[in-house]
Amino acid sequence: MCISVESVTYLENIVYLDNSSTTAPCNEAIVEMGRALKSDFGNPSSLHILGFNAEKRVTLAREAIAEGIKADPEEIFFNSGGTEGNNTAIFGAAYARKKRGNKIVTTEIEHPSVAEPITRLESEGFEVVRIKPQSDGTISEESIAAAIDKNTVLVSIMLVNNETGAVMPVSAARRAIESVGAPAILHCDCVQAFGKMPISVKALGADIITASAHKIHGPKGIGFMYIKKGITIRPLLLGGGQEKGFRSGTEAVPSICGFYGALKAIGNMDKTLKNVTELREFAVSELKKDNLAVINSPDTAFPFVLNISVEGYRSETLLHFLEREGIFVSSGSACAKGKGSYVLRAMGLPRSRIDSALRISFSRFNSKEDISRLVSSLIKAKTALRRVR
Amino acid sequence: MCISVESVTYLENIVYLDNSSTTAPCNEAIVEMGRALKSDFGNPSSLHILGFNAEKRVTLAREAIAEGIKADPEEIFFNSGGTEGNNTAIFGAAYARKKRGNKIVTTEIEHPSVAEPITRLESEGFEVVRIKPQSDGTISEESIAAAIDKNTVLVSIMLVNNETGAVMPVSAARRAIESVGAPAILHCDCVQAFGKMPISVKALGADIITASAHKIHGPKGIGFMYIKKGITIRPLLLGGGQEKGFRSGTEAVPSICGFYGALKAIGNMDKTLKNVTELREFAVSELKKDNLAVINSPDTAFPFVLNISVEGYRSETLLHFLEREGIFVSSGSACAKGKGSYVLRAMGLPRSRIDSALRISFSRFNSKEDISRLVSSLIKAKTALRRVR
Repeated sequence: MCISVESVTYLENIVYLDNSSTTAPCNEAIVEMGRALKSDFGNPSSLHILGFNAEKRVTLAREAIAEGIKADPEEIFFNSGGTEGNNTAIFGAAYARKKRGNKIVTTEIEHPSVAEPITRLESEGFEVVRIKPQSDGTISEESIAAAIDKNTVLVSIMLVNNETGAVMPVSAARRAIESVGAPAILHCDCVQAFGKMPISVKALGADIITASAHKIHGPKGIGFMYIKKGITIRPLLLGGGQEKGFRSGTEAVPSICGFYGALKAIGNMDKTLKNVTELREFAVSELKKDNLAVINSPDTAFPFVLNISVEGYRSETLLHFLEREGIFVSSGSACAKGKGSYVLRAMGLPRSRIDSALRISFSRFNSKEDISRLVSSLIKAKTALRRVR
Repeated sequence: MCISVESVTYLENIVYLDNSSTTAPCNEAIVEMGRALKSDFGNPSSLHILGFNAEKRVTLAREAIAEGIKADPEEIFFNSGGTEGNNTAIFGAAYARKKRGNKIVTTEIEHPSVAEPITRLESEGFEVVRIKPQSDGTISEESIAAAIDKNTVLVSIMLVNNETGAVMPVSAARRAIESVGAPAILHCDCVQAFGKMPISVKALGADIITASAHKIHGPKGIGFMYIKKGITIRPLLLGGGQEKGFRSGTEAVPSICGFYGALKAIGNMDKTLKNVTELREFAVSELKKDNLAVINSPDTAFPFVLNISVEGYRSETLLHFLEREGIFVSSGSACAKGKGSYVLRAMGLPRSRIDSALRISFSRFNSKEDISRLVSSLIKAKTALRRVR
């Protein structure tokens, strides 16, 4: 792992390939947080200069986010992260529009913080259409268009799937909404995409996007919603009326500043994307040699996420073997109850592939050397571990 | 302001008396956050050692909170702060019990993050009884007992009022619930009390309490709910099932660690209470001299909050005058729309008192010298500023 900043040198001997779970905060994020904690501790709602100074720091972060997604700062609302954002978007949009229709369109492979709120809405009487992915994990434009009708009030489709990296044709949902004249709000969970690929909310066509800081080397516990001007949703948290009434609660100034630091440190996104694409290609070609692993991610996947299976070896066993080698990845099956990944199941993968899945997820701090270490450790694992029948 | 820790020396020349709005993070909180950001950045849900290490830090904080309120660590659930906690408690309890009754009992002087959710529930069909405070700002045990009946499913009463410091007889609500056999969950907003007075959830009799870190020199954006074992409420945030399903979302590890640091730094609470009581007594006696100000807080108030009025001078004008002297307080009227404080209005104070109210709020870092500076600046203000007719 090639990390130059002083604060994270402790990472130099490990290979961290679990960046879609969370990332190591970068130095810039840590510095900004320290400054906020020490100097700008006021409550942004306070009428005096200490409050005003804190508010100024929040505004800086808001502007940086807005610039990053080609939105207006007034369209950015801070919250506690992806889960709160997704819950607020789903419940808020559905309740705001429920007089105009009863149908919610989503996919089978959304994050639980999208899927669970939609299941609750279903139990309250909404009709829910969950689009099945194709066998490679992608969602077709046609299936989206076919699902949206005049009764649809909410469409929620993630931009990048967290388990496979599959990129969703979100703008196709926008076109379908316009084409049938649906009264739908289009929500896009951008947690895995934001800060790693250029996003323009206009090009995407989403009315609401959600993202968090801790996937891009910022702190955990802070995120934002973009809500397009003119779109009204029912807020989830009521109270002091912060964030223009969309999200009450004292602003988490230190974390917001950490988010700002992480944003400033992103650097040239195109260059990073190119590097990570090369990294992924290298990994894929190495993993395919001698059938070391099979690739579960689609060919067109976002390069930061690579889902593989080492058939004959259980995910958790491999994960812990790699851990002892100083290499950190995710098991593909997030569900501890033995059901295996619902994403890979939705793709129709055989049980043997699901039970042996690993998620490798990159960040801009990873190097080819990290991949080489992963590959040689997997080779070692195959000799050291007993195959599952 | 008497602050010894190195990180907040920048405060030495100011007098910060707005601690009920927010506090300056203490050195211990900042150090713990830095450590979490640099060393324990894993996602507690990850199956490898980095996740496990982060989880361990969260557990330490959970245990410290539990110990502080004489609860079990399994009864503590982290969230993003007081507003989220109060919303979760109110909505979660009301929806969980709505088959057993329809009545909610609260007071007229709750924080907006309690009052607003209850107003939404009222619009959904719940009957709401809002107990009026007595003229000194306190709530009588009798009025609580009279309001609770067999149809009551939720009682929400704060422990310490944020504007006046009035201490509420929360345990009287518990007795009333038991006495009539109400199917009610008792929620207590402890945001202003937690970490400043000894709290035992058993003695208090609350089923749910809510609090946040930033009122006790921890970071903004982190709080917790205590939910008594056996009490089930409907969660507000759905998703990955963190916090045993009560609050999904990746744990805000750095902020949780900051909370832990703030808790460790509290020191001897009884001694601090005694010091702050002396501080308040000194302030009251100085402010009463030559009728410099009148005291709006009840005599029995929690000493950390002191509400006063400098009749004939508008709150905002005084606030900004004091600000130029390096003294930071709150205007009593949080509402910018000119209506003035709803708490002071509920107490039946005359308009002249409401419009000239200031909230002075202490922390363990304040000194007698701070009070003297406040008093001499108020005397100066009365000569420098023009009286409002």
